[in-house]
Amino acid sequence: MEKNYQNQIIIDGLQYCNWNREIFEDLWNGGITAVHATLVYWENTEESFNRINEWNKIFDENNDIICHAKSTNDILQAKKNKKVAIIFGFQNSAPIANDIYLLQNFFNQGLRFMQLTYNNQTPLGGGCFENNDSGVSRFGKEVIEEMNRLGIIVDLSHAGKNTCLDAIKYSSKPVAISHANPKFFHNSLRNIEDEVLIELAKKNGFIGLSLYPYHLKNFGECTLEDFCAMIKKLINLIGIEHIGIGSDLCKNWPNEVVMWMRNGKWTKKIDYGESTNKNINWPKQPIWFTKGSDLKNIFESLVINGLSEDQAYKIMGINWLNFMKNHF
Amino acid sequence: MEKNYQNQIIIDGLQYCNWNREIFEDLWNGGITAVHATLVYWENTEESFNRINEWNKIFDENNDIICHAKSTNDILQAKKNKKVAIIFGFQNSAPIANDIYLLQNFFNQGLRFMQLTYNNQTPLGGGCFENNDSGVSRFGKEVIEEMNRLGIIVDLSHAGKNTCLDAIKYSSKPVAISHANPKFFHNSLRNIEDEVLIELAKKNGFIGLSLYPYHLKNFGECTLEDFCAMIKKLINLIGIEHIGIGSDLCKNWPNEVVMWMRNGKWTKKIDYGESTNKNINWPKQPIWFTKGSDLKNIFESLVINGLSEDQAYKIMGINWLNFMKNHF
Repeated sequence: MEKNYQNQIIIDGLQYCNWNREIFEDLWNGGITAVHATLVYWENTEESFNRINEWNKIFDENNDIICHAKSTNDILQAKKNKKVAIIFGFQNSAPIANDIYLLQNFFNQGLRFMQLTYNNQTPLGGGCFENNDSGVSRFGKEVIEEMNRLGIIVDLSHAGKNTCLDAIKYSSKPVAISHANPKFFHNSLRNIEDEVLIELAKKNGFIGLSLYPYHLKNFGECTLEDFCAMIKKLINLIGIEHIGIGSDLCKNWPNEVVMWMRNGKWTKKIDYGESTNKNINWPKQPIWFTKGSDLKNIFESLVINGLSEDQAYKIMGINWLNFMKNHF
Repeated sequence: MEKNYQNQIIIDGLQYCNWNREIFEDLWNGGITAVHATLVYWENTEESFNRINEWNKIFDENNDIICHAKSTNDILQAKKNKKVAIIFGFQNSAPIANDIYLLQNFFNQGLRFMQLTYNNQTPLGGGCFENNDSGVSRFGKEVIEEMNRLGIIVDLSHAGKNTCLDAIKYSSKPVAISHANPKFFHNSLRNIEDEVLIELAKKNGFIGLSLYPYHLKNFGECTLEDFCAMIKKLINLIGIEHIGIGSDLCKNWPNEVVMWMRNGKWTKKIDYGESTNKNINWPKQPIWFTKGSDLKNIFESLVINGLSEDQAYKIMGINWLNFMKNHF
């Protein structure tokens, strides 16, 4: 099985790491084919372009083991060349501000995922932490149409329920929730109701399942068995083709960064996000998922828990690849 | 009466002009004490700071007849010095993007009015053209608190009904609708329902009545008598102290600018705003209000139509001044 796993398509549908050689080597050694990497949350246009420039330097410095993927063909080519493919994504619409024309610029630089919202309301739609979710706005509709045209995946992680349902309805291409879990597994603001999951799948949408502790049953104490049981239940609800992993792995950041992710510059107070006990540090990861290469633990557990190897490989990456083929 | 009018406080609560010497001379000759001038609609942070820099040059070049007012005391001083006082305002929250700390920077540069929204949804609240108005968002609440602290007036022109009601409720200082009319006068998306006007006045809020044709009964054919009759009806509804003029006068712009105000960069299509017949040009002003100095026509008509001179002067500027004293 060892050799087999290394030859398969393994995709992590979202990570936000403070990238360095050690992290890339772990992905490379762990047989990871591609990672959707978050570039920004609250950053404005100029800061977001700067982040891309920084990535271009990172690609130069690590071009023996990673490369930038702008298409699914690039991902397959990277696999052949034994490199980990990196796909760019924004976790917010802050980079485009009120300017729809910036989507083309960011697309040209490799942007392939963009969330409409990040917890809070944006000009495009409502966030999952808002009391009143507007749904997709006038600008939001225009942006979805432009993202569809260009081939940027509409990502609804961190969106409110109405915004999810509207985007599923308005988008002419399937949409993704790149990193979240079903609410039936753990009832948090960030996790997704059955109704949304069902509508998502009806339109060939996709969910990447999250390993971020606040999205997990029993948080960092979540067992691998419980996680796999959730996957099996979800397969029954929406069908296996719509499911992958989006680990939301955040490695190598100081604790200040989790507070920055929550607060950006939108409040002068402290917002604790999903932490009910006002934890200002990174939450503790489950022991079976502390680094990118730990995806293999999930694969092995899925097989132990009754999925066929073919089914497990679908969850581990083939489904993501097929979904992405709709877009780029 | 002629001499008397020139000595009174006459305030226009909103204009958006392509300012030049001729416009300033008209205001100066017309006895205008102060004008709240719109600096930006869709402009981002840097563009908005540039607009302020441009204004500083305009002040230098016209310092014999205009000056920059940062306080009501500055307005009174300008009157004594026979200069027209200019108060800075933004018609959108685009300049602050997602950064609450920028409010202090813009305040320091003279910002004294800011709209939460301009027709469309923003991170702060819902616009009057949205199908679903979110009301004031999480960020919106924080921004209102900071505007209250600094002394920037929360302006709800172009906001949706829920956002108006929320802002009236959340703001610790009275809020303004700087330029709009009651819906009972002309039923447009931009005009204001009785319910909002009543709640606004209960919290000592303020409305500046608009002369923009799309806000007027019979548009550009609106009669001065009808406009004055509306004012008298509104006085009965909410009390005279809460009422002033915010003419929304847009002088000296090419037709492209009205399309830019409507479309910014948020759509690649054409949005016709309040024009039901797809007019892409500036609408025709009523003949009795084509320039800033025409405020005098309104004053005279109010007196002819039964208001006392004292009452008419309240509407023409004293009320605005008293309202602004709550803030700066």
